[in-house]
Amino acid sequence: MTIEIASENRAHGGRQLVVSHASESTSTEMRFSIFLPPQAEAGGKLPVVWFLSGLTCSPMNVTEKGEYRAACAELGLIFVAPDTSPRGENVPTDSSGGWDFGLGAGFYVDATEEPFARHYRMWSYVTEELPALVASEFPADMGRQGITGHSMGGHGALTVALRNLGRFRSVSAFAPIVAPSQVAWGTKALGGYLGSDEAAWRPHDAVALIEDGARVSDLLVDVGTDDPFLDSQLRPDLLEQACVDAGIPLTLRRQPGYDHSYYFISTFMAEHLRWHSERLR
Amino acid sequence: MTIEIASENRAHGGRQLVVSHASESTSTEMRFSIFLPPQAEAGGKLPVVWFLSGLTCSPMNVTEKGEYRAACAELGLIFVAPDTSPRGENVPTDSSGGWDFGLGAGFYVDATEEPFARHYRMWSYVTEELPALVASEFPADMGRQGITGHSMGGHGALTVALRNLGRFRSVSAFAPIVAPSQVAWGTKALGGYLGSDEAAWRPHDAVALIEDGARVSDLLVDVGTDDPFLDSQLRPDLLEQACVDAGIPLTLRRQPGYDHSYYFISTFMAEHLRWHSERLR
Repeated sequence: MTIEIASENRAHGGRQLVVSHASESTSTEMRFSIFLPPQAEAGGKLPVVWFLSGLTCSPMNVTEKGEYRAACAELGLIFVAPDTSPRGENVPTDSSGGWDFGLGAGFYVDATEEPFARHYRMWSYVTEELPALVASEFPADMGRQGITGHSMGGHGALTVALRNLGRFRSVSAFAPIVAPSQVAWGTKALGGYLGSDEAAWRPHDAVALIEDGARVSDLLVDVGTDDPFLDSQLRPDLLEQACVDAGIPLTLRRQPGYDHSYYFISTFMAEHLRWHSERLR
Repeated sequence: MTIEIASENRAHGGRQLVVSHASESTSTEMRFSIFLPPQAEAGGKLPVVWFLSGLTCSPMNVTEKGEYRAACAELGLIFVAPDTSPRGENVPTDSSGGWDFGLGAGFYVDATEEPFARHYRMWSYVTEELPALVASEFPADMGRQGITGHSMGGHGALTVALRNLGRFRSVSAFAPIVAPSQVAWGTKALGGYLGSDEAAWRPHDAVALIEDGARVSDLLVDVGTDDPFLDSQLRPDLLEQACVDAGIPLTLRRQPGYDHSYYFISTFMAEHLRWHSERLR
């Protein structure tokens, strides 16, 4: 595997990198950002927190606006932010011009429908290819991984964690889409990438996965009460009920006055990183 | 004075606003951002830190990337970020297409040269009009003001503080242009806005102001050793010598490996805000 450092900046005593590489999963060049905290200079391996981003985002949104570096530097956490879809001239996108499907909206699935099946393989990318690359190129302790994400990326974090219980010691989410099978963003994406047979959607629906027996040890979720997508797309109530039924300890915090933006994410980022750090020690 | 709230987001327990208003100084609409920390809800007045931004920036750069809200929320500081120039279809800019003059590059002076004299009145805007507006519309204790800034905005912060000793209790800067009369960015801007008589430049040159007797009680300046503009445009050595000669206590920190970006600014933002807070109590 060959990586190219697209940019490197010293920040909070560590190194903030943007890395590009040829991806076998997506058959495109992919970019991700990775923050190596100051503790990485000492030579040992460090725990990793994955951040999966939301609709329309590249890795740069959280890298610039997420305010994670101070906490990662304090706690000794590596922070990795993958992209949200394949990109490039040959990559098909939403024929209707929407921003909720196609480019920037890969939904962390391996598409089976044409014309998306070749490039839109974000499940394989974030669960297999990128972790292998990070493990080989950076001082990441793959026995101590946590995962979080925002909105579509919260959906990604929950489904990835629920299907990889042994791999992730900690999972949290900011304003996640918890039941894509039941909301407009999700049905458009899952239908478009996976086809109309809803049986194929269940492994990519956190609430359905929990109903089908998948488990995590515990879960931290923040949502803003002024999030315009709260009742239409996110539906934290469905996750709450599923966790009650399944006996999963869920800390669901409805944060008064917060919206769906990075102002919300950055406010609670340090608390999420502490949650992960406590479970990754 | 009439203001319009262009956006409002809850963040770190407070309110992050972007405000627009018709400016008498610049004869344009102007925008600034203001963060009101949670302590503003209690009804009292709070100290204010001004942040003057660098070349090419709008108020959004520091608002999105500056990582100031957590510290302001902890310390109870209002944080105001003005724009860096007038903007609009009728506002002239650099005829050669440069990014270091004209739009986004007002250099915090009142232009006397045509065609800039009408709109480019950033000195009046940041020292008179905007403080009056902030004092009238927000719970700002104008007896407790501090000022900081980055690059061109570091130049602005130093010159504004040096010429208003009674008004600012604290001053700091990130990678400031300390002697614009002696570097290419500065001579282009001061010549373009103020004309070729260098006597008119001295009130807008921090090192010249100190040589001419202006003083601040003390000063915190951070620069990055990997800043590509360090030796050509910033010249912290000139400020260091001027402060030694004048007996101004200068804390100049050469931060190893840091560059000119917001990764540098955000790393040291909280320390600067603590510096201000200690002097604004």
